[in-house]
Amino acid sequence: MELSRRELSLIRALATRAGRKKSGCCRCEGLRAVRELWAYYPEKVRFIAVAEKAAAMLDFSPQMIRIVPDKLFDDISGTVSTQGVIAVAEIPADADGPVEGDFVLALDQLGDPGNFGTIARSLRAAGQKELWYTKGSIDPWGDKAIRSGMGVQFGLNLRRFETLEELADFGIRQGMKNVFIADPHQGESCFECASLYDRSIIVIGGEPNGVMGAYPGAGRVVIPMPGNYESINAAQAATVLIFESVRRKMS
Amino acid sequence: MELSRRELSLIRALATRAGRKKSGCCRCEGLRAVRELWAYYPEKVRFIAVAEKAAAMLDFSPQMIRIVPDKLFDDISGTVSTQGVIAVAEIPADADGPVEGDFVLALDQLGDPGNFGTIARSLRAAGQKELWYTKGSIDPWGDKAIRSGMGVQFGLNLRRFETLEELADFGIRQGMKNVFIADPHQGESCFECASLYDRSIIVIGGEPNGVMGAYPGAGRVVIPMPGNYESINAAQAATVLIFESVRRKMS
Repeated sequence: MELSRRELSLIRALATRAGRKKSGCCRCEGLRAVRELWAYYPEKVRFIAVAEKAAAMLDFSPQMIRIVPDKLFDDISGTVSTQGVIAVAEIPADADGPVEGDFVLALDQLGDPGNFGTIARSLRAAGQKELWYTKGSIDPWGDKAIRSGMGVQFGLNLRRFETLEELADFGIRQGMKNVFIADPHQGESCFECASLYDRSIIVIGGEPNGVMGAYPGAGRVVIPMPGNYESINAAQAATVLIFESVRRKMS
Repeated sequence: MELSRRELSLIRALATRAGRKKSGCCRCEGLRAVRELWAYYPEKVRFIAVAEKAAAMLDFSPQMIRIVPDKLFDDISGTVSTQGVIAVAEIPADADGPVEGDFVLALDQLGDPGNFGTIARSLRAAGQKELWYTKGSIDPWGDKAIRSGMGVQFGLNLRRFETLEELADFGIRQGMKNVFIADPHQGESCFECASLYDRSIIVIGGEPNGVMGAYPGAGRVVIPMPGNYESINAAQAATVLIFESVRRKMS
């Protein structure tokens, strides 16, 4: 099938937050991202735009596919070297089931979509499910966040909160036992904190100075840096914390 | 002092590999990057271009400073929201002293400057010094690599080799005891491999399938991923491996 004019303007509009808000849809670009979407929310997919050059490689249901001339596809793609596939889907609602896995990773005002994607992928690779975030963080269903996350957000339990306090209160009500804030300067070493992954909420901030919000009774953990140089970003810090949980589980 | 026409064309030219090759200089953008450069190689700095709006905040030697109108600065900057400072410096020669620290991190054909910068910063934060790379990896003195690394490459021992074999041979001659290749699929768990940081060369590849080169007798290590999803990139993998060394050292 060909892409209709209406579908074309929808794809273009979804590159912006306003366009997503108006339509309730998101655009999901890249082969891995579309496969994740298809695995978790096939019922939400409206259509899948495919560049002519990529059509032979793809195996999605024919009635979903809209073939797009290569040149037009390059024009609507958000990337420089496109893989030739963009799905348009309704934005999934936030998770509302029980909290799964060993711990919750919470992002407080994380503004960078690339960091968000990296963190989501580390969490997925570690086999965890819960990725929570506060207002002021990026939109997980934005074009760049989906691309950088390769769509892993479709398989995670995303939950959005107005403030860090609301987030932590919700977690505690759901049976979480601890709240830890990752601090770039001080706190207990993340390699020594015994209860770090025991039904905890681990909060990571997007600001260079870490988490801006506060929560009464929250512990502070720090990633030791013998180089005495605080140069790692939120995504690197999250990756260290996430894989420390893997190490403990494995040993 | 004002920026001369000649200096202006030099800054512009240094955004490309050809321009750097011709002049033997690099451009170093951002406040942290310029401070690193200034700390390690003050003698190599030719001049520092500063946007008018940023001039009051900076404290470099007046004879180094070239004040640039804000609009022109935005035009020569490689970033969307510039910090208003770009230093031009001669490219430092590769390290040729003894191998320092506990292990060597080696990059085999790592093509992404953002990943390079992230890895360099993790290494610096962990207090290690040796960052080696093979032909086919990005230029560590490229505009983007310096920005993404925030100039930490100026404080590391960078060494370039034609092939992985040449790199490993050099390391062994310098007294390194082991070569480990990070493999996305198989090998000993990085959390269990006892000799991983004992005078070892740890090789990370830029390709989705890992290291393309080979070395006789090299061990293979893998980062366990209970999520059964190989979605982490070279920079995340390197960060996990680097901070596992920190953890062992601290405990």
